[in-house]
Amino acid sequence: MEITRKNFKERLNAIYSAIEEADFLAIDGEFSGISDGPSVSALTNGLDTPEERYRKLKKHSMDFLLFQFGLCTFKYDHSESKYVMKAFNFYIFPKPFNRNSPDIKFVCQSSSIDFLANQGFDFNKVFCNGIPYLNQEEESQLREQYEEKRSQSNGAGTPSFISPNSSKGPFNVPEEHKDFINKVVEEVEGLLNTAGKTSVELPPCTGYQRKLIYQTLNWKYPKGVHVETIETEKKERCILISKVDEEERKRREQYKQEKEQEELNDAVGFSRVIHAISKSGKLVVGHNMLLDVMHTIHQFYCPLPEALNEFKEVTMCVFPRLLDTKLMASTQPFKELINNTSLAELEKQLKETPFKPPKVESADGFPSYNTASEQLHEAGYDAYITGLCFISMANYFGTFLTPPKQHISARSKLIEPFFNKLFLMRVIDIPYLNISGPDLQPKRDHVLYVTFPKEWKTSDLYQLFSAFGNIQVSWIDDTSAFVCLSQTDQVQIAVNTSRYAESYRIQTYAEYVENKQEEKPD
Amino acid sequence: MEITRKNFKERLNAIYSAIEEADFLAIDGEFSGISDGPSVSALTNGLDTPEERYRKLKKHSMDFLLFQFGLCTFKYDHSESKYVMKAFNFYIFPKPFNRNSPDIKFVCQSSSIDFLANQGFDFNKVFCNGIPYLNQEEESQLREQYEEKRSQSNGAGTPSFISPNSSKGPFNVPEEHKDFINKVVEEVEGLLNTAGKTSVELPPCTGYQRKLIYQTLNWKYPKGVHVETIETEKKERCILISKVDEEERKRREQYKQEKEQEELNDAVGFSRVIHAISKSGKLVVGHNMLLDVMHTIHQFYCPLPEALNEFKEVTMCVFPRLLDTKLMASTQPFKELINNTSLAELEKQLKETPFKPPKVESADGFPSYNTASEQLHEAGYDAYITGLCFISMANYFGTFLTPPKQHISARSKLIEPFFNKLFLMRVIDIPYLNISGPDLQPKRDHVLYVTFPKEWKTSDLYQLFSAFGNIQVSWIDDTSAFVCLSQTDQVQIAVNTSRYAESYRIQTYAEYVENKQEEKPD
Ligand SMILES: Nc1nc2c(ncn2[C@@H]2O[C@H](COP(=O)(O)OP(=O)(O)O)[C@@H](O)[C@H]2O)c(=O)[nH]1
Ligand SMILES: Nc1nc2c(ncn2[C@@H]2O[C@H](COP(=O)(O)OP(=O)(O)O)[C@@H](O)[C@H]2O)c(=O)[nH]1
Repeated sequence: MEITRKNFKERLNAIYSAIEEADFLAIDGEFSGISDGPSVSALTNGLDTPEERYRKLKKHSMDFLLFQFGLCTFKYDHSESKYVMKAFNFYIFPKPFNRNSPDIKFVCQSSSIDFLANQGFDFNKVFCNGIPYLNQEEESQLREQYEEKRSQSNGAGTPSFISPNSSKGPFNVPEEHKDFINKVVEEVEGLLNTAGKTSVELPPCTGYQRKLIYQTLNWKYPKGVHVETIETEKKERCILISKVDEEERKRREQYKQEKEQEELNDAVGFSRVIHAISKSGKLVVGHNMLLDVMHTIHQFYCPLPEALNEFKEVTMCVFPRLLDTKLMASTQPFKELINNTSLAELEKQLKETPFKPPKVESADGFPSYNTASEQLHEAGYDAYITGLCFISMANYFGTFLTPPKQHISARSKLIEPFFNKLFLMRVIDIPYLNISGPDLQPKRDHVLYVTFPKEWKTSDLYQLFSAFGNIQVSWIDDTSAFVCLSQTDQVQIAVNTSRYAESYRIQTYAEYVENKQEEKPD
Repeated sequence: MEITRKNFKERLNAIYSAIEEADFLAIDGEFSGISDGPSVSALTNGLDTPEERYRKLKKHSMDFLLFQFGLCTFKYDHSESKYVMKAFNFYIFPKPFNRNSPDIKFVCQSSSIDFLANQGFDFNKVFCNGIPYLNQEEESQLREQYEEKRSQSNGAGTPSFISPNSSKGPFNVPEEHKDFINKVVEEVEGLLNTAGKTSVELPPCTGYQRKLIYQTLNWKYPKGVHVETIETEKKERCILISKVDEEERKRREQYKQEKEQEELNDAVGFSRVIHAISKSGKLVVGHNMLLDVMHTIHQFYCPLPEALNEFKEVTMCVFPRLLDTKLMASTQPFKELINNTSLAELEKQLKETPFKPPKVESADGFPSYNTASEQLHEAGYDAYITGLCFISMANYFGTFLTPPKQHISARSKLIEPFFNKLFLMRVIDIPYLNISGPDLQPKRDHVLYVTFPKEWKTSDLYQLFSAFGNIQVSWIDDTSAFVCLSQTDQVQIAVNTSRYAESYRIQTYAEYVENKQEEKPD
């Protein structure tokens, strides 16, 4: 189901209950860009540590916009032995909701935009009808703005309007505005003393003058008049003063408060869906989902923390239970059975023996996706496919039980080993980022750090190490690379032979790490 | 006429001749963002020097994308005493044209995107069918790439493939590829020795291996075989070797060269239109056109230079004759007659006495715009309106002549005073940037530079200077501002009275400039 700014509010309860009733959720995001270039390789290195990789992704990817979010909820129907799914495809855009809202700048990468354009992605829908959102900081700022305005109009007089040069308390009107304010007070007196006259509209004035009016009138007339700012047809802001009895005044205040609450909710917008996912505590499944998780937190919760450990903590608060189908498919017992873990290929392979295509139907009133005519790279569809992959792999564990079981639930102990481990792309020896604990620390004592002139090619490295058998090269930049030897005991020999070389230099990985830590400013 | 990637090539000659025959051109651009925020004021200051303003615009605006370009050509038809116009509305997008093309990143500003979305701007058309472009640097790089490839396949053997560790000349094949290359040579021998066999396709291999194949075969078989890279259905790159006689080989080479030239032209894309405008030397009219000019040069010629003077030089090369209708409308004799110089308002006022709506018609085959049903903020329409404004204002000069003239041409001496002066927004005392000479240097000896605590408001400044009559405040940031006094002889008095103040500080403008120059790192 397509969700834009136009139907978001009316669908929100349906979204909430889909999340509530689900056994698990699948998500996917589409972004305005992915990385530093079409070859991610300039950005990533096969021997990045988890910290390095996190910092690189944070630095190079968070300026892009997550502008489509797919959510697919799956609920198991025991009586019919099938999953019932509800797919939502959200269009998201940080529309400035009022004059004070942040004017977000985001980066687009032409390769990503071109890729999505070729998939038939509808940019007009995103930019014209995307649902707005706020992160938690922005939400509380806005809430404070509303509260400040409210306390002000309740006559509390906030200290921020005290002029630094004034000493006579908050209602000291600066000299140049005294005439103006006196005229306003005369108008109000006129209003109060004229039976039959119920309100008066002042001519447009500046924001500062409006503040002075609020302060003065709330102080002089705590009861009996209601002051509000209205916008004229010409979009100018005016003050309207009405004569009201106490009951009417309260009724108006309350109405205003309700409208403000609604405006606030509208501004928080799509973030409310993420809050609901988060509060549900449900298992959230994604495919190669590290960037999706990072973007979701960055855009809808808070700017990403500097340190990987803090990121893990935040993530566990927002998504207490995650599962990455790419990691699952790359792990025993699936590793041997699946030779291509890209989402589209994985979905195809998981329909064939020894796997079974899962029984999944769309809920009533929800359009169904057809996996035969692919709609890949619509986020809602990708989330759906990801859910299918998860179900097939989970059910595969059932074949090992005695008696075999057709259905393995999202709460089964059998899938717990895959929780909170997010696939790490292109790291040679660390398959995943462990969100709920320390990361793997593979031995790297067969790794060399080599620096050389920038004219060198991979073939030069092969030639240099030709005496050492099979090697694996991971480029760092154009004058350095990691070289993995197949035998650890050759590391020292390699380092020794390079001692007198002029054009290149070889160090052990341990030396490299040590030097790097020394370089780092504390 | 709407021009996208789909009809660009077939319309290009029509565009060229429209430019060639025109009396003057009008242009306008639409961008993915404008400035540092919805209030440009954080970015600009009413007392910026031209250098400061240029550097601020360069720093804060050039990451945005110019994605729609309007060009309207106007040709005067003397026999019918009317202008004939041709309007082109170009959609522009830096589509990566091949694997090696730059992957441009550009910034979008949500307020600008939202503004355009509300105007019905078609983002899908930009992102799916935008015309690509290259700046001059990128164009020559691409040309070199092609030339390198060509010289390579002609058997010249470029030094960049010489392995630094090898000493036996360019065709030394690294050890680990020797078997591979020997097999290729066997294949070719087989091909040459088998009558009736005309070509052989090698299995897919790496780019490096393809280079080795080219080098080896060009060296071993300078005649008799033709080597080319083809892409298989699976998008893998293979080498195809064909047996050819010398004539056929040359024919193929030439065909390839022509195709490469066409590819190059396609990649240069929209920049060719700018080159044509530039070469034509025609008068180019725009409305408030400084940012349009900066973006056009930045995107289609070269990154903007650091110094304003260099920018002026580049601009005079690209656009030898510019005219800004906003500057014209703000200058004598129009200043008194026009009270709102925004484009839409200006166009309306220039239809009324003492002005005359110009007689302008669309050329045959070109759709006409209707100024009654406004289509503002389509670049083609805005360019058209700008042209109308220019014609009305130019013709107004004709009323002063004896006998009065209905038509004043774009080449008339009467409009020369407006050439190459670009409107400077929100600078109090410098109306324009003078592209073809030194800028105005207004006296600023009535200006004070005031610093103060960040709690201060404009009203505090009014209060502080209340003894000095009328003042004008230009905020710099939240702890400093320029204050213009109405009388120069009060400057010293103000500075003196502040000598013992603790919370604020007053300096003359001259002192401010001096301190600023000292701060600057050289
Ligand atoms: N000097 C040199 N640098 C290279 C070579 N290949 C890659 N690099 C550098 O290493 C980085 C990563 O390369 P790689 O992992 O092979 O990715 P790819 O070049 O995008 O396929 C590149 O951005 C280059 O800076 C090479 O043959 N010679
Ligand atoms: N301390 C203080 N700073 C201000 C005030 N008004 C503006 N500024 C600062 O000056 C900058 C430019 O302000 P201004 O030209 O009035 O633009 P505007 O605030 O966007 O309308 C703002 O971004 C603020 O940092 C004020 O009343 N007090």
